[in-house]
Amino acid sequence: MKFKLTNGKKLYYEVHGEGKPLVILNGIMMSTTSWKEFIAPLSKINQLILVDFLDQGQSDKLTEAYTHKTQIEAIKELLDFLTSEPFHLFGISYGGEIALQFAINYPDSVERLLLFNTAAETSYWLEEVGNAWNKATHDAEAYYLTTIPFIYSPLFFTENKAWMEERKKKLIPLFKEPAFISSMIRLTNSSVNFNVKNKLHLLKMPTLIAGAQYDFVTPFYQQEYLNKNIRNSELVYIPLSGHAIMYEKPHLFVSLIKGFISEGKDKYVL
Amino acid sequence: MKFKLTNGKKLYYEVHGEGKPLVILNGIMMSTTSWKEFIAPLSKINQLILVDFLDQGQSDKLTEAYTHKTQIEAIKELLDFLTSEPFHLFGISYGGEIALQFAINYPDSVERLLLFNTAAETSYWLEEVGNAWNKATHDAEAYYLTTIPFIYSPLFFTENKAWMEERKKKLIPLFKEPAFISSMIRLTNSSVNFNVKNKLHLLKMPTLIAGAQYDFVTPFYQQEYLNKNIRNSELVYIPLSGHAIMYEKPHLFVSLIKGFISEGKDKYVL
Amino acid sequence: MKFKLTNGKKLYYEVHGEGKPLVILNGIMMSTTSWKEFIAPLSKINQLILVDFLDQGQSDKLTEAYTHKTQIEAIKELLDFLTSEPFHLFGISYGGEIALQFAINYPDSVERLLLFNTAAETSYWLEEVGNAWNKATHDAEAYYLTTIPFIYSPLFFTENKAWMEERKKKLIPLFKEPAFISSMIRLTNSSVNFNVKNKLHLLKMPTLIAGAQYDFVTPFYQQEYLNKNIRNSELVYIPLSGHAIMYEKPHLFVSLIKGFISEGKDKYVL
Amino acid sequence: MKFKLTNGKKLYYEVHGEGKPLVILNGIMMSTTSWKEFIAPLSKINQLILVDFLDQGQSDKLTEAYTHKTQIEAIKELLDFLTSEPFHLFGISYGGEIALQFAINYPDSVERLLLFNTAAETSYWLEEVGNAWNKATHDAEAYYLTTIPFIYSPLFFTENKAWMEERKKKLIPLFKEPAFISSMIRLTNSSVNFNVKNKLHLLKMPTLIAGAQYDFVTPFYQQEYLNKNIRNSELVYIPLSGHAIMYEKPHLFVSLIKGFISEGKDKYVL
Repeated sequence: MKFKLTNGKKLYYEVHGEGKPLVILNGIMMSTTSWKEFIAPLSKINQLILVDFLDQGQSDKLTEAYTHKTQIEAIKELLDFLTSEPFHLFGISYGGEIALQFAINYPDSVERLLLFNTAAETSYWLEEVGNAWNKATHDAEAYYLTTIPFIYSPLFFTENKAWMEERKKKLIPLFKEPAFISSMIRLTNSSVNFNVKNKLHLLKMPTLIAGAQYDFVTPFYQQEYLNKNIRNSELVYIPLSGHAIMYEKPHLFVSLIKGFISEGKDKYVL
Repeated sequence: MKFKLTNGKKLYYEVHGEGKPLVILNGIMMSTTSWKEFIAPLSKINQLILVDFLDQGQSDKLTEAYTHKTQIEAIKELLDFLTSEPFHLFGISYGGEIALQFAINYPDSVERLLLFNTAAETSYWLEEVGNAWNKATHDAEAYYLTTIPFIYSPLFFTENKAWMEERKKKLIPLFKEPAFISSMIRLTNSSVNFNVKNKLHLLKMPTLIAGAQYDFVTPFYQQEYLNKNIRNSELVYIPLSGHAIMYEKPHLFVSLIKGFISEGKDKYVL
Repeated sequence: MKFKLTNGKKLYYEVHGEGKPLVILNGIMMSTTSWKEFIAPLSKINQLILVDFLDQGQSDKLTEAYTHKTQIEAIKELLDFLTSEPFHLFGISYGGEIALQFAINYPDSVERLLLFNTAAETSYWLEEVGNAWNKATHDAEAYYLTTIPFIYSPLFFTENKAWMEERKKKLIPLFKEPAFISSMIRLTNSSVNFNVKNKLHLLKMPTLIAGAQYDFVTPFYQQEYLNKNIRNSELVYIPLSGHAIMYEKPHLFVSLIKGFISEGKDKYVL
Repeated sequence: MKFKLTNGKKLYYEVHGEGKPLVILNGIMMSTTSWKEFIAPLSKINQLILVDFLDQGQSDKLTEAYTHKTQIEAIKELLDFLTSEPFHLFGISYGGEIALQFAINYPDSVERLLLFNTAAETSYWLEEVGNAWNKATHDAEAYYLTTIPFIYSPLFFTENKAWMEERKKKLIPLFKEPAFISSMIRLTNSSVNFNVKNKLHLLKMPTLIAGAQYDFVTPFYQQEYLNKNIRNSELVYIPLSGHAIMYEKPHLFVSLIKGFISEGKDKYVL
């Protein structure tokens, strides 16, 4: 379905199932369609809300440069429309950064926060990685090669060669679409200057932070940093996985989300 | 409640809630009472079955030496009585070893297997640690000091000094009870010669393997071994935690269990 | 100095100091000049032999595609000329792969083998990363952005922003040189199909294997693999460092090399 | 040789070889004889100074309780006598704690500081572990079982069962000597209240900090803490090793020491 923002742009979203809402915010290259296999397990006892960011999937494209603020406000408008009660907010990578800022800005709306492969800032290093991505946009295969291997663990990528080659065949045509590529550039650039290190102490809701051994995009020291600075947070580490946890370890991925949002207990008196 | 085994001994057990059964097998020094705080979250949508092993908690004491086999058979009798459908089987440490063997012996009974801080064998090293425990049984404080600090991460133990001292006060009188101590010796000795390394390939049910960074009893390479040799297994690592994950990281502990047993999906077609 | 190979090509090499030779094999983007700061510490009690691979630094360029074999044979010819006694052989990354194969082919020449950030094979993943490099060769900045951030740990890169920017200024003009770039493509492609996993058992000399926490090019599981399969090997891990250990942790880098080659003891009888 | 302190007590020490002095401070259960196999490699180009702490090896026993201060002052007197030039100071575990404090108190005497398996404080947890040791002193085998398995990695201990059993045979008679045991109690107790966390910023000399994956006595977070708080320090991590690095990984142990003390370079201008 489409939701019209006050700025006239439309956000594509999906609602599946019933119960306490669980909002899923995509990684930069993902869209609502990426979650196809996860809809059933995640909407069993929760209302699952999927959404494409602006410049993503079936949401409207933008044309000018913007920052995370634009995405946060769009998500806020949509969620105000969809629900009046607090919800669980999950984000991965780009979506984790938006989720983190959303929770800082609107703490009363977020019951539990789930940050997978998320950092509290866009480091100078990641900025240059983003520049590499932008530089490769002229050629679909270059774009694939510059972005995709980086997102998986070398182990998974190598052991699933056939699957990766299938993926390559699907992605290359997409990376040839000028509209997709110009969206990717804007999305990538919207993360420059992101830094909420000095606001993490504001977070109080139960927060799950998940990192992975071979996550090269948001390496584990960044999840350790979040865990040290978000008071009510739990830290979990996925051995052998890369940045794309949901593809490399789907069972663990779903287990962590379902488990953490069904863990309603505030405090254990042991 | 008590269940009378064919050998005449009685097993103490508790059943909480309704739904697909989740059977919890205790660590060596635990009992059904250890799970008090976890009953509510774990019995929300599952039938939670707690049980004291022979020589544990409110179950009957034994008098002769025995092996794991005795415990496995007792659990088997009880579960045959309690349920005719497959269940989820969770074990931690000693309970993990029994769970592992139970699942090898009775694969059709176990839908999902959850092994926390578990090894596939009692190493010579752990055998000597067990001997240290046995040697300290003459003195309650010696027994406390030899066993308890070893079970927690140095970080948690140090940061929760007051809580540890409370615990010490509660445990010392228990460790003065000859019946408790002689049970502990038999339980400890029942693990000698445990080794199922060459049977792990028999396991096919979805299995969750959890280890912890500062688990000194069953160090992480043992969970890595399980993960490499149990085909359908997921491996998760808890940074900063010690052997007693449920006390050090209760939220994560419950999240992992609830998440994994509610993850019904066989296969993700990504 | 230049050494003329039987195929007519010239290898550039340098010899510094006296003593048991220590041969240093460069990473793919390095050259003898990369070691400027390391010459003094590494040639104090050893004869330090630096060499540019074919297509590297001041050695001759090639024009046709080749494999590692070409480099190994060139190094063999040079070392046969320079020394008749066994030497210590150090390699990092690309140089580590050549060193590894050299030691397998000519075990009697290598007294101690030092493999830093080295793998036993070029995985499909690394092959695709290499393809990304090749795809970026049309544009100097693209080439910088695709290769360089990948080589450093995100921490080091970010904390040393000014130094990285200096480096960028120096590298961009180099990356504009067609001769340099065409050499890089050939060097990169020469690693495709490299795989000596089934020959590691042949190695018997004392071997030091060093890996780094944030080495994204040859991740740590590959050094663990080498350690498990090279019988007489020692494994060391550098926390927080990336692939370019010598730049990120120069003191540790030199300490490990000097220490390991001065450790003459065969066996400790403890 | 014996050196008479101003308090009348005698310290046993040995001097081997010539060159810049390298002073080795023992772990709590060690003595100068523990280094037998290491004398040759470590005294090749350095003057190696071994010393038994008071209450250790061939040094005099004490009779009253004391703190680290007593040991530090004794070492200071001895080293003032032995050398007037700065030296390299190595300490492991107990010896690392003394070395750390020595370097804080007498920074001009220490050219390079090497801290293996060392912490900046005796945590409450380690204090209780020490209490376990003290409680086991009534029985030689209990003392062995409580202290020794704890010091090795489970892997090494298990894989070297025959060697461990040999060691047990040698240690049990020693642990039966009342004089040895009463010394061990005093040494153990001398570490209570040790805490130099707020003095680490005073250290400026090049410092090597080594930790090990399965070091259960001084777990790795304590070496990470030292590394973060000692400005000019390098951190290295030994996979698979326990607390007794010198026995589990002797080649790496010697390599790290020899390498770091021969690394004379102040700064790399890269």
